[in-house]
Amino acid sequence: MVSRFRSSLRTVSALSSKNSLALNRAASLAARATFSTLSPTCFASAHTGELAYTTDKFPHMKRNKSFKKLSEEDISYFKSILAPSSITQDKEDLETFNNDWLRKYRGQSKLVLKPSSTEQVSKVLRYCNENKLAVVPQGGNTGLVGGSVPVFDEIVVSMSNMNSVRSFDTVSGALVCDAGCILEVLDKYLEERGYTMPLDLGAKGSCHIGGNVSTNAGGLRLLRYGSLHGTVLGLEVVLPDGTILDNLSILRKDNTGYDLKQLFIGSEGTLGIVTGVSILSPKRSKAVNVALLGLNSFDQVQATFKRSKDELSEILSAFEFWDQEAIKLVKQYLAVGANDPLQTPHQFYVLVETSGSNKDHDDEKLSNFLEGLLTENIIQDGVVAQDTTQIHNLWAIREGIPEACSKAGAVYKYDISMPVPVLYQAVKDMESHLLHKSALGDGRLFTSVIGYGHVGDGNLHLNVTAREYTREATDLIEPYIFEWTAQHAGSVSAEHGLGASKNNHLHYSKSPSMIQLMEKVKQMIDPNGIMNPYKFLPDK
Amino acid sequence: MVSRFRSSLRTVSALSSKNSLALNRAASLAARATFSTLSPTCFASAHTGELAYTTDKFPHMKRNKSFKKLSEEDISYFKSILAPSSITQDKEDLETFNNDWLRKYRGQSKLVLKPSSTEQVSKVLRYCNENKLAVVPQGGNTGLVGGSVPVFDEIVVSMSNMNSVRSFDTVSGALVCDAGCILEVLDKYLEERGYTMPLDLGAKGSCHIGGNVSTNAGGLRLLRYGSLHGTVLGLEVVLPDGTILDNLSILRKDNTGYDLKQLFIGSEGTLGIVTGVSILSPKRSKAVNVALLGLNSFDQVQATFKRSKDELSEILSAFEFWDQEAIKLVKQYLAVGANDPLQTPHQFYVLVETSGSNKDHDDEKLSNFLEGLLTENIIQDGVVAQDTTQIHNLWAIREGIPEACSKAGAVYKYDISMPVPVLYQAVKDMESHLLHKSALGDGRLFTSVIGYGHVGDGNLHLNVTAREYTREATDLIEPYIFEWTAQHAGSVSAEHGLGASKNNHLHYSKSPSMIQLMEKVKQMIDPNGIMNPYKFLPDK
Repeated sequence: MVSRFRSSLRTVSALSSKNSLALNRAASLAARATFSTLSPTCFASAHTGELAYTTDKFPHMKRNKSFKKLSEEDISYFKSILAPSSITQDKEDLETFNNDWLRKYRGQSKLVLKPSSTEQVSKVLRYCNENKLAVVPQGGNTGLVGGSVPVFDEIVVSMSNMNSVRSFDTVSGALVCDAGCILEVLDKYLEERGYTMPLDLGAKGSCHIGGNVSTNAGGLRLLRYGSLHGTVLGLEVVLPDGTILDNLSILRKDNTGYDLKQLFIGSEGTLGIVTGVSILSPKRSKAVNVALLGLNSFDQVQATFKRSKDELSEILSAFEFWDQEAIKLVKQYLAVGANDPLQTPHQFYVLVETSGSNKDHDDEKLSNFLEGLLTENIIQDGVVAQDTTQIHNLWAIREGIPEACSKAGAVYKYDISMPVPVLYQAVKDMESHLLHKSALGDGRLFTSVIGYGHVGDGNLHLNVTAREYTREATDLIEPYIFEWTAQHAGSVSAEHGLGASKNNHLHYSKSPSMIQLMEKVKQMIDPNGIMNPYKFLPDK
Repeated sequence: MVSRFRSSLRTVSALSSKNSLALNRAASLAARATFSTLSPTCFASAHTGELAYTTDKFPHMKRNKSFKKLSEEDISYFKSILAPSSITQDKEDLETFNNDWLRKYRGQSKLVLKPSSTEQVSKVLRYCNENKLAVVPQGGNTGLVGGSVPVFDEIVVSMSNMNSVRSFDTVSGALVCDAGCILEVLDKYLEERGYTMPLDLGAKGSCHIGGNVSTNAGGLRLLRYGSLHGTVLGLEVVLPDGTILDNLSILRKDNTGYDLKQLFIGSEGTLGIVTGVSILSPKRSKAVNVALLGLNSFDQVQATFKRSKDELSEILSAFEFWDQEAIKLVKQYLAVGANDPLQTPHQFYVLVETSGSNKDHDDEKLSNFLEGLLTENIIQDGVVAQDTTQIHNLWAIREGIPEACSKAGAVYKYDISMPVPVLYQAVKDMESHLLHKSALGDGRLFTSVIGYGHVGDGNLHLNVTAREYTREATDLIEPYIFEWTAQHAGSVSAEHGLGASKNNHLHYSKSPSMIQLMEKVKQMIDPNGIMNPYKFLPDK
């Protein structure tokens, strides 16, 4: 395989010779369905043994005393409205719902409910609200900030039994479905109809569309199709008091009243449970190309990005980068490390993807783009995938980075956004900071600082690998990284959300007046505070 | 000019002959800046004489007794915080701010304030809130539903003095500016930097970006760039109590807390005043093509739309339609009527625009698309503009329709959205309804029923022309049209908003539980109800 890549590498190096240009011929988005090899179980094997409860790890968390404890009477009520198979009390079965896949959080819920209809969700929430029973809505449980697992004894409401497509409009591309539909399943449903989901992320094989909406998931296609605030057309939401907000519109334009659905996008289940989603799906692209480039500096990465917006423009569908430290770990720990066709190491790597409706046009745009970059010495090397397998393999390098980091030992993960020009400065400054503290390098606390992410979205995934998770290590990184982000007008959570791990860092990215209004919104819709407590908003 | 068009018509009819294809060569979006000839003053000349006050026309409207009446003491306070030139009390000058450009609404405000900074807006609102003085925020005053003019004696807060660009990020395209910047001015600013505003509408020469945001303006580019809920990155908003919500982020991704800015997009100034806007601008397209097509049926319009999504895909930037009645009026009343290069009348007309980064590629995609439509007899005729003048002229037909309707006499205007398949049924059903009531045709109350709009957005502009505005005429159309829309799961206001003209029709498109939550939001943020009263939400 490497030799095939080498031939395309030569091709890229001699782009002016049109005849020798070997671009991918049969690539289609269908192949992308297999890209996402990073499943929630990947990391779990790295850790063994019984996990500590969240409340043991974070003893500052206190159970809200106003919440009622679950009683037999409550169970009887739930049995009266749900099928027996929709109620889980078995200790072993409960573990799946109490643990997050990063094995960082472990709750102590004694009850999981799996309603099969919006009406059942409404009955469950109304009862819980009247009885002050706290609730954690759970989708695919693929989050990274502990937002979807209980902290204490909250009841888990799993949406896994609500997983039907309700309707699809072949003219507009409006898809209406239950919140518990798995993202990848929806994408396959749409693929058969010539459409695609407007979002794509590593966890697509497990995550629910309702969870995506509730966490405002970003992912790999945001650059092309924008955020869920733009692509979600309507929602069906059950409020804590059981009210069903029926706003499952398929209209692209509707200026009648406050756009309430927006409040629930990214609110992490703290205002109610999303039970249905209407989303605008774009036409599936007929042609997909992927190129991997090697560069000397982040300035060159930026120059390449700016030029891609000019020259690839409407067909640009992804612009990802990673650094030398990232590729080192991928090569060291993962089989996909052998996929790297750029045999000389580079300071930076860029993966560019184009998606369009005409293969010949896209090939020409891409080759002109790459030729210009090579001629002007903006990139040092590059390859273009020639088939779907090569596309898959190039993506596998990018998507393997989180797993490679986790295999290197303990990994401190940050997901920050900021203006693109200072994006990589975060990595360099963190490195200097840790070196200054004599905490990075051979025999030191930390082993490496890694930067990768979505350049087009100004979204950096900053990972710091360490020998082990310790309080000392945490204190060396935090609040340094959050203060750095605040100083650069960035966000301390670009796409992962706040959950239980970042709710107390909200003030680094939002002003007191913003946080105050958020608290008023929470109070207005969930006055008893039963929805996903101990998370999202700062502790009081 | 017609002969030049005729030559391109022949070209379109013989598209398989590649050499004779005469597509526009020098089209650029720069030319589009002159398309929007429809200014607020266009219609004003059709009406003369002193206008009746809104309160005389709509005697059911009652002044909220809890609001204080303006006193000399209040004026003194405003004089202490604003420059003399920022305060308007002159009776004649006030008329501009009291009247909407459709001359349907006329308020009785005695005071216009034009703050020059966010801090001044904050002081004004805090004072008004403490003293229960009602306020109407006003941008370019180009709205169509009476949302930006007072009803009684509300103080007008005009944003016209806040009109600076604050920053522009050339890497990401994030533009930050004052709310009072005129849309067209911003677009020209961006044009010089290779970018474009993600929205475009007829009133661009007058409307403010703050007003666009506050009304969630849709317009001509929504099909390509999506709604403001997706493209607005951040807002600076002054709440009624004077609190400044500083959320003027330029980040593309930020998942820290509830996305509060969304609440203010489309809230028509009822929750506060937008003072600053951060918006993501896309790269300006290097190539623009426009084609005008003639078709026999709305089924053919739909088939053409579906095919355009497949074949023009990423370069499709507008898909507009109008009917035979619309072109009749344009030809009868406007000089631009001579622009119609399709000399045989057609039942339906479609204007397709493409915008892309490579002229040759776009030309090829468009010619293949048109050739297929002609071969399969989906379109009967068509022309492709050959230069920017022809592009301008084709757009002028589409953009002239509202003006032509208004010249035909009284015009009842509805702006509804619904699933595309039933879009034109609304026109046919309205026609049947009026014929059934013996109210349409020679010597009858109504002269014609016209349909045009944005097919890609499912957005129909339904206009009914009449000899004069009468109660009887209104009662023949309403609530028929709203009930029809509700029955077809549509929106009674796709893009124009609710304002003072549709606030009581909200229930046709939103459920009681939705309206109840909207009222709670209003109560939470504006408990004294001083912001833009008598509008948006239903009368109590």
